Amino acid sequence: MKAAVLGATGYTGLILLRLLTEHPDVREIIAVSSSQPGEPVRGADPGLSPALEQKMGASAGKLVAIAEAVKAAEARDLDVVFSGLPHLKSAEVCAPFFGRCVVIDLSADFRFSDAEAFRKAYGAPPARPDLLAKAAFGLAEWYGDRIRTADIIANPGCYPTCTLLPLLPLAREGLLKGTVIVNAISGISGAGKKERTDLLYCERTENACAYNPGTAHRHAPEIHKELAAAGKGLGLLFTPHMAPLKRGMCVTTVAELARSPESEGPRSIRGIYEKYYSGRPFISLTDSRIPQTRDVWGSNRCDIGWRLEGDRIMLFSAIDNLVKGASGQAVQNMNIRFGLEESAGLRAGGEL
Amino acid sequence: MKAAVLGATGYTGLILLRLLTEHPDVREIIAVSSSQPGEPVRGADPGLSPALEQKMGASAGKLVAIAEAVKAAEARDLDVVFSGLPHLKSAEVCAPFFGRCVVIDLSADFRFSDAEAFRKAYGAPPARPDLLAKAAFGLAEWYGDRIRTADIIANPGCYPTCTLLPLLPLAREGLLKGTVIVNAISGISGAGKKERTDLLYCERTENACAYNPGTAHRHAPEIHKELAAAGKGLGLLFTPHMAPLKRGMCVTTVAELARSPESEGPRSIRGIYEKYYSGRPFISLTDSRIPQTRDVWGSNRCDIGWRLEGDRIMLFSAIDNLVKGASGQAVQNMNIRFGLEESAGLRAGGEL
Amino acid sequence: MKAAVLGATGYTGLILLRLLTEHPDVREIIAVSSSQPGEPVRGADPGLSPALEQKMGASAGKLVAIAEAVKAAEARDLDVVFSGLPHLKSAEVCAPFFGRCVVIDLSADFRFSDAEAFRKAYGAPPARPDLLAKAAFGLAEWYGDRIRTADIIANPGCYPTCTLLPLLPLAREGLLKGTVIVNAISGISGAGKKERTDLLYCERTENACAYNPGTAHRHAPEIHKELAAAGKGLGLLFTPHMAPLKRGMCVTTVAELARSPESEGPRSIRGIYEKYYSGRPFISLTDSRIPQTRDVWGSNRCDIGWRLEGDRIMLFSAIDNLVKGASGQAVQNMNIRFGLEESAGLRAGGEL
Amino acid sequence: MKAAVLGATGYTGLILLRLLTEHPDVREIIAVSSSQPGEPVRGADPGLSPALEQKMGASAGKLVAIAEAVKAAEARDLDVVFSGLPHLKSAEVCAPFFGRCVVIDLSADFRFSDAEAFRKAYGAPPARPDLLAKAAFGLAEWYGDRIRTADIIANPGCYPTCTLLPLLPLAREGLLKGTVIVNAISGISGAGKKERTDLLYCERTENACAYNPGTAHRHAPEIHKELAAAGKGLGLLFTPHMAPLKRGMCVTTVAELARSPESEGPRSIRGIYEKYYSGRPFISLTDSRIPQTRDVWGSNRCDIGWRLEGDRIMLFSAIDNLVKGASGQAVQNMNIRFGLEESAGLRAGGEL
Repeated sequence: MKAAVLGATGYTGLILLRLLTEHPDVREIIAVSSSQPGEPVRGADPGLSPALEQKMGASAGKLVAIAEAVKAAEARDLDVVFSGLPHLKSAEVCAPFFGRCVVIDLSADFRFSDAEAFRKAYGAPPARPDLLAKAAFGLAEWYGDRIRTADIIANPGCYPTCTLLPLLPLAREGLLKGTVIVNAISGISGAGKKERTDLLYCERTENACAYNPGTAHRHAPEIHKELAAAGKGLGLLFTPHMAPLKRGMCVTTVAELARSPESEGPRSIRGIYEKYYSGRPFISLTDSRIPQTRDVWGSNRCDIGWRLEGDRIMLFSAIDNLVKGASGQAVQNMNIRFGLEESAGLRAGGEL
Repeated sequence: MKAAVLGATGYTGLILLRLLTEHPDVREIIAVSSSQPGEPVRGADPGLSPALEQKMGASAGKLVAIAEAVKAAEARDLDVVFSGLPHLKSAEVCAPFFGRCVVIDLSADFRFSDAEAFRKAYGAPPARPDLLAKAAFGLAEWYGDRIRTADIIANPGCYPTCTLLPLLPLAREGLLKGTVIVNAISGISGAGKKERTDLLYCERTENACAYNPGTAHRHAPEIHKELAAAGKGLGLLFTPHMAPLKRGMCVTTVAELARSPESEGPRSIRGIYEKYYSGRPFISLTDSRIPQTRDVWGSNRCDIGWRLEGDRIMLFSAIDNLVKGASGQAVQNMNIRFGLEESAGLRAGGEL
Repeated sequence: MKAAVLGATGYTGLILLRLLTEHPDVREIIAVSSSQPGEPVRGADPGLSPALEQKMGASAGKLVAIAEAVKAAEARDLDVVFSGLPHLKSAEVCAPFFGRCVVIDLSADFRFSDAEAFRKAYGAPPARPDLLAKAAFGLAEWYGDRIRTADIIANPGCYPTCTLLPLLPLAREGLLKGTVIVNAISGISGAGKKERTDLLYCERTENACAYNPGTAHRHAPEIHKELAAAGKGLGLLFTPHMAPLKRGMCVTTVAELARSPESEGPRSIRGIYEKYYSGRPFISLTDSRIPQTRDVWGSNRCDIGWRLEGDRIMLFSAIDNLVKGASGQAVQNMNIRFGLEESAGLRAGGEL
Repeated sequence: MKAAVLGATGYTGLILLRLLTEHPDVREIIAVSSSQPGEPVRGADPGLSPALEQKMGASAGKLVAIAEAVKAAEARDLDVVFSGLPHLKSAEVCAPFFGRCVVIDLSADFRFSDAEAFRKAYGAPPARPDLLAKAAFGLAEWYGDRIRTADIIANPGCYPTCTLLPLLPLAREGLLKGTVIVNAISGISGAGKKERTDLLYCERTENACAYNPGTAHRHAPEIHKELAAAGKGLGLLFTPHMAPLKRGMCVTTVAELARSPESEGPRSIRGIYEKYYSGRPFISLTDSRIPQTRDVWGSNRCDIGWRLEGDRIMLFSAIDNLVKGASGQAVQNMNIRFGLEESAGLRAGGEL
């Protein structure tokens, strides 16, 4: 496998470089930077492993311009391109790769098959409405069949991943009704490596708050389209929060039960989850134990716990927003797409 | 004013010492420690101001045993005792002070007028059921009349304070119905200065999670009793979260509207809040701007914002859990009880 | 007193607004912003106290343009201007105030009486070489006599303040010789509120490092000129470090003793410090106890401890870099200059 | 390889379990806990990978009592025991393993070949003076020859590792003289997972300070014995600091040059390091770039930079205190001892 990473110096790009360095099936990595081509990749982030430079072959450990990656794609020795670019820009920059290699896009550009839904969420029409229908939504545990054959994979957002993984099985089984209330806490890296005052250390340490609640957050429609597809009539009220975490995300979901909780006790809830996730390497069921973001730090795992509370169910899920919520799931999608071991190059254990 | 602080080396005690040091009407402070009497108070916390030592007069800047404070109360030159002791222990240790001076109890021992409700929440009968009816619930903006004459003031918990202040006006006006969904994030100091593994720096930094959700948290019944008293039939589903904050609390509340949102637009919501809180020095209305915990760090303020979302209203509130959520509100209650300026010795501005 | 704050939305400006709000002798505050005049000051930082708006009188709680502050100075009802602007820009923007009111400059523009020394440290000639000799170096505990009559006060940097306060008494007494090795850890706010990638939360949390060591740091010559003036022939090797702190600074100094340590035991060291600092409200001697940055958080205090180690002495000092290291010392200088209580409006106790 | 980890639920133990889980040559892991045998290992730390349970074979994913591990050692199917126990206790608990399998001890019990030196540093005689001479000091880059044949390997402390790696080559070459001044900043995990008030989140966040300076820190003699062995007459003044980091250590060293700096310019310094470290997978030379702790987070790397400053040299080094400073170097020592690839199971890249 030969892979290129567009936007290699952003947070998702830097995690991708780390994961691909350790990936047993990836032979060569091209790190692409539109802003600083020619720079040594380990100058951009001295934390990167020296082993990455060995995998960078022809590019001699240096960030390359987009044109170099295009040439490699044209020469047909590039298998996959990961794009960690911002939405709208991503679809545009990826244009030369469509049809030449598999594109795994971490931006929102291909997450909606409906152009109007994209426009509503992002305030602009999608860059490539012609390709929306061809893209697979890369929620790896749910769209494996489509991912296996797709040449464009739209990696889901971190909030949708962490919210949908515990919700979809219950929604599919018709267990839920009404408006699902979702409250999420995200690590600051979810906002990207942007020179914004509100992302400064001094503004975020010892500080927590909700932001863009309800329909104001772009991820709400992305979550809702999947939720509504799984369970007719389900509504969503989604509120993200920022807390002083570099990485990590935890989601607390409250949903009304459509059926008596007696018939769906703790055992049965586990049964439903096992029906959908049994054997999947990155779903861990913690039953009544509530997952912590620390448990999954650095891993591609999503931990899921739950509690029954009267006629409601509470769901608790945790991921690393940069791994299962972004770059890790992107690699998982690559693994699925190319018939590799699903967990190749990914860790199921969290750091201490 | 002469004041004693029981449990002076815990977090609420240490904040009380700070506030009373700066309080213009407090002439003398007795810092009481059952575990380390005789120790210099600034040895226990070198951050304390040298000015505290001057206010400690007879006790010469040293932590005193409970017996000393009792003697001062018997000699009738102690006006008020603050207890920062754990529940059950607090009512017991405070026994000699009842009837001799005003007791402001930061524990849960007098928060429930109903002994059975206490027993359910705390798993043991209240220590002094005979005094429950005499205690005022010290939510300062709501129970001023009772506080002004009470000799026992039960200072509310931090979660109840931050949750009830935005909810009660709307509940009183009959604007809400159904089950109110409350998600809160608290600073770690809310758990007290306890030698517990799960409170270690290495366990809590870069880590967030829900804990004791739903009816499992002791503060849920404390919130619910007040909520139900304000608005008939209102239910509560409360989920606290821990995030890497030393101090601070933010609460996100979702409630169904009992009346059309059109008739209660942003203007009217503000109108309701002004009806109840106008002129109160520690309530700040932020309208659609969502408060951050940082804004109120070190202050006794509760910031309240809101947004309408279809037939629901979202409320956002923030306090410093150790100030408005504990020691600050205790001083505010002292001010009210003794006819001082409500804001004496308290700050309305947050630290940077 | 009527005071203006230039650069009111930077970190030192925001702390100045807080301190002046609480200052008993300051009647009116003009908050000046070159970038966002007309904006409500509490919109720029919702943590500011509502009481600030009352002190802002004519400016109605809004940030004003530099021209407004100049007009107030011309009308002779402005007593003091604090400048929290960057070096070089500060002297330029302050030009209309010189001669009209006292200028307390938190930048480096007037810290060197020697123009060449400034040029070496800052890579450019000073903006106002004509005024260098008129400015007092605002190390409050050392230059009170000059500060009392100066119309320009050059507030020292945070590193020089925290390094010099423990060193100067020993240097003056001829106790030290050789090259003094200084290692300092600073809170990130010392770098200002700048939109720089390396100041992002995700770059600085869980991260520590030295930076600009030795002669590479601009504060080294500022420290050295004072040190050399106090003790002939003393050298300096200064290394600052960044750690994940919003505020706070601790300095560890190792110096060779010029005289036998026996004759200058712990008692005598304290004696020397008392000779210079006795009665000063913001110097706290901790003897062999090592100060922590937390002890002085939010206070204007400098805590100083020491240990003898063979023929060397180790000095340990801690300040809040934004208070004693910047805005607090600026207010202290104002107090000294205008004959107010030295500690007016300043706290000697640290936050918890 | 079959390995046991004593003290499996401490921080070094938990990192060892992570590393051994990913180690390609380790077939079976026995996690030993004296305090909670019988507990599921992933209950003690839900962050551990499910893959660990598979490697735990006979122990069925449960923590086992010391007796079980002894039995495995007696049955000769245990190759190596890692001890993450406290000093003095470690040598005692390890007793049954000596002679039966290789013991890699992360405590201080075998770090001094001189019993008296141990007694001075630890205030008690060593538990097993008879074995001191048989133990190899496990500074992997320096004592490979001894490690390859030793049956007891004394893993160095984190401070000695990070301090000695940059110092030893220069000391060996006779480049240094006088007293070396070392200032270090360590992550809080270096103090272990102990229920101590001073290690609580609320005590350590936003707080930094020196502690146990000079000869007061136990690691000073451990550093000095190696330093003095490498360069005659070299002295040491060592001051550790705590900052709000979970993991990570950076060391700033100032040393006098014994020879003219001209003859040993930046190039030559690199030359010396290359002479000793060329080809070693975990030493990374950063020249004048100063390493950050973040760069090596999670990796077994030690990054080393330097600057010349007059007649002194400044050295800057960074490690992850739990990896290269403890468990990672322990695994590196196992690799060397058993003739495996030195870097097997270890990462050279740091986490983001």
